[in-house]
Amino acid sequence: MKILVLGCDGYQGWPVTMHLAESGHSVVGVDNLARRGWVKEVGAWSAIPIQPLLKRQQLFDGDISVHLSDISESTYFEELFDDLDAIVHLAEQPSAPYAMKDLDHAKYTMRNNVDGNLNILWALKEFNPDIHFIRAGTMGNYGTPNVDIPEGMFDLEYHGRKDRRYFPNSPGSYYHLSKVHTYQQCAFATKTWGLRTSSFMQGVIYGVNTEETRTHPGLPTRFDFDGVFGTIINRFCSQVIAGHPLSVYGTGEQKRAFATLENTLQSIDLMLANPPDSGIFKVYNQFDTTYSIMELAESVQAAAENLDLDCPIAKVPNPRVEAESHYFNPSNQNLLDLGFKPKGSLTEELTDVMETLLPMRERIVAKDASIAAKVKWK
Amino acid sequence: MKILVLGCDGYQGWPVTMHLAESGHSVVGVDNLARRGWVKEVGAWSAIPIQPLLKRQQLFDGDISVHLSDISESTYFEELFDDLDAIVHLAEQPSAPYAMKDLDHAKYTMRNNVDGNLNILWALKEFNPDIHFIRAGTMGNYGTPNVDIPEGMFDLEYHGRKDRRYFPNSPGSYYHLSKVHTYQQCAFATKTWGLRTSSFMQGVIYGVNTEETRTHPGLPTRFDFDGVFGTIINRFCSQVIAGHPLSVYGTGEQKRAFATLENTLQSIDLMLANPPDSGIFKVYNQFDTTYSIMELAESVQAAAENLDLDCPIAKVPNPRVEAESHYFNPSNQNLLDLGFKPKGSLTEELTDVMETLLPMRERIVAKDASIAAKVKWK
Repeated sequence: MKILVLGCDGYQGWPVTMHLAESGHSVVGVDNLARRGWVKEVGAWSAIPIQPLLKRQQLFDGDISVHLSDISESTYFEELFDDLDAIVHLAEQPSAPYAMKDLDHAKYTMRNNVDGNLNILWALKEFNPDIHFIRAGTMGNYGTPNVDIPEGMFDLEYHGRKDRRYFPNSPGSYYHLSKVHTYQQCAFATKTWGLRTSSFMQGVIYGVNTEETRTHPGLPTRFDFDGVFGTIINRFCSQVIAGHPLSVYGTGEQKRAFATLENTLQSIDLMLANPPDSGIFKVYNQFDTTYSIMELAESVQAAAENLDLDCPIAKVPNPRVEAESHYFNPSNQNLLDLGFKPKGSLTEELTDVMETLLPMRERIVAKDASIAAKVKWK
Repeated sequence: MKILVLGCDGYQGWPVTMHLAESGHSVVGVDNLARRGWVKEVGAWSAIPIQPLLKRQQLFDGDISVHLSDISESTYFEELFDDLDAIVHLAEQPSAPYAMKDLDHAKYTMRNNVDGNLNILWALKEFNPDIHFIRAGTMGNYGTPNVDIPEGMFDLEYHGRKDRRYFPNSPGSYYHLSKVHTYQQCAFATKTWGLRTSSFMQGVIYGVNTEETRTHPGLPTRFDFDGVFGTIINRFCSQVIAGHPLSVYGTGEQKRAFATLENTLQSIDLMLANPPDSGIFKVYNQFDTTYSIMELAESVQAAAENLDLDCPIAKVPNPRVEAESHYFNPSNQNLLDLGFKPKGSLTEELTDVMETLLPMRERIVAKDASIAAKVKWK
């Protein structure tokens, strides 16, 4: 297949790009390199040094071409859509704290995510509605409802009557709002214009390596540990390496869904092989399993001990406005139905992350000030 | 009270501005005059000539000051918020066909509506979260669910468990999407920052006069009859005047909720007198009653006959993607609980509109080409 990967320079985008090329697809990557700038802006860098995108592309032995451009500005899709089979869209600004910093960051996040998405949807309508559009959403859209979390539509019953509706969202930041907006726009455009869209609602992605990142010292993906772009497990591992206690927000009872990078690749493969019919907006909750934050912290602690690393846990005031004790039962049946089988264990993955980060200790410590969560919701 | 009216030059904004000043409030109006430009862009104009905003302001005997500026660009709210008690936000781009025209119009609608709303929300947080923020939403957010339509949150039951959630939306255009987005942003900001927000979800507003528009020949509000900015009843009345058959989309069984301009003023008065507590996002469905499109067409026909006007009905292919035969039972209990009593009857209002439009026949006929609905959803 010919596949367009939007955000091919990102934490997920680069491993996805390599994996798809390695699987024999022809991959066209697009990125404006914004993520590198955002992380620099918050005073951090990738714990693992990464090559410039064009250098990475040269180092990798596979069919990858690269466009350095901004999908939120662009109107050049016609050319990219030639003979295209699928799009994997990983180009949204992915950080809640970044979007909550101030008005300008909230607006920037809206424009980057919403305008980028609109450009894609209208281009699909215009040039080829049959291209399979696979877009990354977030399970953060749902908040933490006191009921099970379905995938996409659910049976709504109210005052004795019934309907099928999209499950109501409860976004908890301007980032999450932008993701809800793009989700709703995709649902509308898919139905109205007969597109074929797979929306994979991601849990928190963690991990450092995939089969392809290990093949050459110039091919790792970025790994963020700062309080703005680092995701929870990756940050915990970095805190161990830097000799900081693990910062658990509030009581740590918050439950979330998690997936490794490697299992994310498996999920994308399954979606690619199963394009929805025309007009169908197919929703997948993409995660391996759920944990409470405190369970995670304790698992990190155990894995650290195996590596003879000291790992105290520190509860810090929660900078977010969120429920700490809550029900959480999301379904991921749609991926399981396609044959999804999560590989690896939490302990294996945590050990791999910490072993990979150990030689990077100096780089993490050098940006020590960026590790704490400084953006407050209120 | 000191009240900021955003969109003070609009179809609703100008009557609201006059009414609030007439009621003894000190009104600060803000408008960028964009609506005049949009209507010109689609080849139309107001059936009733309207004065420039600053001229209107001079003609009206009341405490109105005016700022000509764009809230989607602005960062000057600090000054406007001085001693302010309430905001009435009527400054969103209100047309679904306009937003559906092409990619640029979809993006423009998002930016105008979403950025404007973000500017207000962050300014409230920054300068004074106690200001009562009254924002116009649309009942179009709901689509046409097969269950009753509540106001704001509802009791969600799923797989035997319960929660309170915002009722799921089903936006049917990029305009409606933008309104869902600003609704969700207001709900989030209100809860997170302790704002006081009243969101009035409007049915289709119709009518031409209010008590204040009748006081001086220079004080009418705009009246749009074109296929992009004219709302259904106003368009039907204009079609009668122009000698066209009433254009009923599809079967005409579609049901919608409607409110007159005059009853909208009453609703705003009631909301102003009842600001929600800090952190409460209060939702009102604002309408007088519901009709099917065919019922409306027949009422227009009856009122036209009383004025000796010919009024055939023509079914035209539906340019929108929407259900034509559906359940529709919205609640407006929250306004009724505040004492809302719709005044006037449909026949009285239709007669008033047609009598007011009769001398404007030449102006409507002059822009005849703009009357038909040309924007298609597909």
